[in-house]
Amino acid sequence: MPAYTRLDVDERRRRLLDLGAQLFTTHAYDELSMAGIARAAGISKGLLYHYFPSKQAFFAATLRDAAGELERLVQPDPLLPPAERLAASLDAYLGWVEENAGAYARLMRSVPAIPDVREVVDRVRDATARTILDGLHPEGPPPPGLRTAVRAWLWFADGAILDWLEHRDLARDELRDLLMRALWGAITPAP
Amino acid sequence: MPAYTRLDVDERRRRLLDLGAQLFTTHAYDELSMAGIARAAGISKGLLYHYFPSKQAFFAATLRDAAGELERLVQPDPLLPPAERLAASLDAYLGWVEENAGAYARLMRSVPAIPDVREVVDRVRDATARTILDGLHPEGPPPPGLRTAVRAWLWFADGAILDWLEHRDLARDELRDLLMRALWGAITPAP
Repeated sequence: MPAYTRLDVDERRRRLLDLGAQLFTTHAYDELSMAGIARAAGISKGLLYHYFPSKQAFFAATLRDAAGELERLVQPDPLLPPAERLAASLDAYLGWVEENAGAYARLMRSVPAIPDVREVVDRVRDATARTILDGLHPEGPPPPGLRTAVRAWLWFADGAILDWLEHRDLARDELRDLLMRALWGAITPAP
Repeated sequence: MPAYTRLDVDERRRRLLDLGAQLFTTHAYDELSMAGIARAAGISKGLLYHYFPSKQAFFAATLRDAAGELERLVQPDPLLPPAERLAASLDAYLGWVEENAGAYARLMRSVPAIPDVREVVDRVRDATARTILDGLHPEGPPPPGLRTAVRAWLWFADGAILDWLEHRDLARDELRDLLMRALWGAITPAP
């Protein structure tokens, strides 16, 4: 029996990403080493480095993968009216967070220390802000107040979700409604 | 002439904190060393370590000092009605941020990587949340939805301020009004 299984490059990458998602959500970032990850994957360290040049790059790749999955999940149905579209996306997002609560909290705490990771999170935030702004203001670039409101609201959502995960004393629907009220409040123009 | 000036302990500490505030806002954290700081202060490295056991502890002490100053600055006048009280505190806060824009942005980006610093920022956030919640709900602990809303709104404020500092295309009053509308939206109970 050969020690290493021969796998197609894409398939190996796919399996490494799945393993990475599992390892990074059950261990602290600093606890993991490329040697340990290779061992868990049953491949040589050299082969792991062939796929990912560093632990940071590997972590960022697993995050990008999860972010892509999440993006598909919260893709709004363009046939719904705006408020229902947002409610549906928020339901999908909060459902995902609830299923991945430990990973989410760990990520939010660790993000800013790792440049590659911050970049993924910033990119997801930018894309989400653009989607919401396109829905609210389809014609041309949004006015500054609207842009600031939507971008700040994404911070609001992160803060609200962390508070929710810490206390667990709000129903998921209540949290969703709170998030929607905050957004409407922020985007309503000054009288 | 003696190389080191003899100073009273409190006075020396005070001067070191002022120097630290200046150094940490004009240099990246990683650029500074305890040796370099001692040199800039005109004292021995040993004496600097006598006041602060590590660079992290020194940085955290300068932050705690600035946080104390900021807290006095935004102390609400208890005689004002709640909305005006919040507006006055926000004006003071945004004025301080505007004067210390570079330091604020640097801090917000670097915070989470340094445990001592995260602790100071978390403490300021907790104290601010408590002050607002006491004003909104003086009798007993706030309901979970209100607590989550106020805590998340502090994240909103950080996000809005960073966006404002980056683009500078909103007047300070517009930003203040946006912050207030977002808070009212978030704390208004569901119909």
